[in-house]
Amino acid sequence: MDKLYVDEIKSLFLLDDFELKEKILSYHPYEISEALLELSKKERRRMYSILSPKEISYSISFLEIEDAFLLFNEMVPKYIVNIIQELDIDDAVDLMQELDESERAGYLKLMDAEHRENIKELLKYKDDTAGSIMNTEYINIDVTDTVATGMKKLLEQAVTSATIYTIYVTNKNDKLLGTLSLREMILARKNELIEEIMNKRVVSVETTKDQEEVAAIFMDYDFTSLPVVDKLNRLLGVITVDDVLDVIEEETLEDYSKFAAISDAEIDSDTETVLMGVKKRLPWLLVLSVLGFFTSTIIAQFEGTLDQIPTIALFMPMILGMAGNTGTQSLAVTVRGLNDGEFQTKASITKHLLREIGTGFMNGILIGIMLFGVTYLFLHLNHNPEAFKITQVVSLSIMLSLAVSTLSGALIPIIINSFKIDPAVASGPFVTMINDILALSVYFTLATMLIINTL
Amino acid sequence: MDKLYVDEIKSLFLLDDFELKEKILSYHPYEISEALLELSKKERRRMYSILSPKEISYSISFLEIEDAFLLFNEMVPKYIVNIIQELDIDDAVDLMQELDESERAGYLKLMDAEHRENIKELLKYKDDTAGSIMNTEYINIDVTDTVATGMKKLLEQAVTSATIYTIYVTNKNDKLLGTLSLREMILARKNELIEEIMNKRVVSVETTKDQEEVAAIFMDYDFTSLPVVDKLNRLLGVITVDDVLDVIEEETLEDYSKFAAISDAEIDSDTETVLMGVKKRLPWLLVLSVLGFFTSTIIAQFEGTLDQIPTIALFMPMILGMAGNTGTQSLAVTVRGLNDGEFQTKASITKHLLREIGTGFMNGILIGIMLFGVTYLFLHLNHNPEAFKITQVVSLSIMLSLAVSTLSGALIPIIINSFKIDPAVASGPFVTMINDILALSVYFTLATMLIINTL
Repeated sequence: MDKLYVDEIKSLFLLDDFELKEKILSYHPYEISEALLELSKKERRRMYSILSPKEISYSISFLEIEDAFLLFNEMVPKYIVNIIQELDIDDAVDLMQELDESERAGYLKLMDAEHRENIKELLKYKDDTAGSIMNTEYINIDVTDTVATGMKKLLEQAVTSATIYTIYVTNKNDKLLGTLSLREMILARKNELIEEIMNKRVVSVETTKDQEEVAAIFMDYDFTSLPVVDKLNRLLGVITVDDVLDVIEEETLEDYSKFAAISDAEIDSDTETVLMGVKKRLPWLLVLSVLGFFTSTIIAQFEGTLDQIPTIALFMPMILGMAGNTGTQSLAVTVRGLNDGEFQTKASITKHLLREIGTGFMNGILIGIMLFGVTYLFLHLNHNPEAFKITQVVSLSIMLSLAVSTLSGALIPIIINSFKIDPAVASGPFVTMINDILALSVYFTLATMLIINTL
Repeated sequence: MDKLYVDEIKSLFLLDDFELKEKILSYHPYEISEALLELSKKERRRMYSILSPKEISYSISFLEIEDAFLLFNEMVPKYIVNIIQELDIDDAVDLMQELDESERAGYLKLMDAEHRENIKELLKYKDDTAGSIMNTEYINIDVTDTVATGMKKLLEQAVTSATIYTIYVTNKNDKLLGTLSLREMILARKNELIEEIMNKRVVSVETTKDQEEVAAIFMDYDFTSLPVVDKLNRLLGVITVDDVLDVIEEETLEDYSKFAAISDAEIDSDTETVLMGVKKRLPWLLVLSVLGFFTSTIIAQFEGTLDQIPTIALFMPMILGMAGNTGTQSLAVTVRGLNDGEFQTKASITKHLLREIGTGFMNGILIGIMLFGVTYLFLHLNHNPEAFKITQVVSLSIMLSLAVSTLSGALIPIIINSFKIDPAVASGPFVTMINDILALSVYFTLATMLIINTL
């Protein structure tokens, strides 16, 4: 994307401190954050000297955590701690979670008591759960309030609150009883009772809810915020849609990376090195090469067949490729379905597997018929004496291996999912390798049975 | 996911109309929309008779368009038109866009003049652009207003506006000059001038902006709404974050599907049939089978080599598999990078390609060394007379084909992208097939040179 503002901001460094500060603060914090990464060390030092911790904290919250840490390396601890204290508490906790223990302890020590206690409290929640991404500042009014009192409380809490556009209604025990949008509040009459105008059907999540499921709820309901409660329905925090956008970005990247068998598909072109690339990819390749070698040992069982009819090697890559492709297709459909909450019952799983094997057979028959003609013509033109028999084996193998691979592409993620593991780990390459093994077995068995045994 | 509310809503149908309506409306519109799809035709008819077009329109807006059309089939045209008129205008336009021309004309005729004109205006924007997902109702105040006047205008526009939480400031020519959050407005003093407190640095998009780029802006800036302007910076509409969540869902699914070479990876397990599966997958498989057959013709060129050393067929699937895997990895990294706006300059493309080929070589050398030992041991135990030579060929092929495949996985999407085509169409299976062809050529050429020619 065009990031003109980065060059604009860079050019401001000719100004004196006062003007520089004023001009820079007219940019959006996201834009300042992007510029920060592109500035020279010297220019960044100047930024730290003219911007207060609060002013720079807005930009820091837009950075990837690793990038924020890079900048922290250039700052004094007190400045860092002040920045962390100015961040929204969920962002502060995200940062603190990634620090090693001694650093975390050091920063906590430098904090004021209130921030220290709040952050410690939130650090207890497991990474990737609702508790870890929630914010503990929100607009909270009492169920017995009138609209006028509620509005007054809203104004008092508005400055620090993560969102002021949804108002949470609790009773004296902090139990979450209802919600109100700021719009409803503004449009209501001043003397109405909150209890009478609030929405009593509240969707909330517990602190332990997986963040991916939280994102799904935001998508389903088109929420801009969602309350987080404990087991007794006491309000503890809110999650806002901007945090969910981050979660979606993170989880999409994760799924995408797994699908391609790489630990992290994202690179920063400026800083990525060959070694980083090797580190992200080699472990997967090593595992896959072991699976790959396994295919060699299978073919070795059929070396006699290969010796007698070397021509069958010609069609191996095609059959393997087609088996891999159909497997990837049904894998994609099945993983997607599992993520969407399909296949909850045994009946629906059976139905899905039957449908997949049916789809595989149907595709296999159609592709098999097409390839029958092409293969026969090809072998016939090459004057192969076994043209007809080999053609039979190739077509039949395509048919069978398409059916088998389609089934395995659906079955593998369902099995993995039943162990409560994210089915996306059954990435494309793994399913392809397993289908290679299945397809080879089918092909060579058929070749041995139909050609060798009838010679 | 547990959708308990669907069963709860179903059980309400024992009540009389009055109670039924009251209870149902206590559910969230999304929940009602999910229930609508699960009800019997008779129950749905009852819903249409007790709910006003406005009441049901909230739920209709949560449905996929195809599902909304299924329900429309059960309603009378006047009821449908009233529902469309009650929808947010961007949702109404989405629906109208999917109708065939005669139906669309029919509904437009039944509408009141104002809705008809507004919808016609928005139908002019191309699908998947900012114009097609924007809403034309927003809070608009004048740059010369005071906070008090602005607040009064806000209250007047609040009921119909898509969002009231960002306020757009224009001059008398409708030029967009600034924004204000409702929070800032609430916290400001009543007699302050809007001009003095508004944010003058406004990020906006033109109507023609691609919706995927719009989503990227929301993610970068953590926006909850974004103004849409014409070429002269006149305000035309706003896009809200809930629409962007829909866009992200749609685009993620599209990328995911392309990666797996399937036209649509999403299924509804209840209604999906084998034939639907075949239709989504067969076209891709046919194209891929042609590419696959091409590998056969390449091997055919080396039939002499195969006849003399059938053992080399043993390692074909492994070499192909590894080439395919490395290709998929660099494809994923490159497509992701292109989507993130990396590789804009020739220098950065060259750098990326050099880095990829470096990564490929490095991985190739490491995997090659490992496989050298394993392959030699395997062939030696099988008393293969050419064990050492074959091992050399296998290792060298892995090295070379990993480098070549890694490069091609990066090069192909960059080339496609340079033609302004979405690089995601270079899906995994296509790159895998192309890498199959490259790797086979490397393997058989090496085998012929190093074994046959030295026998």
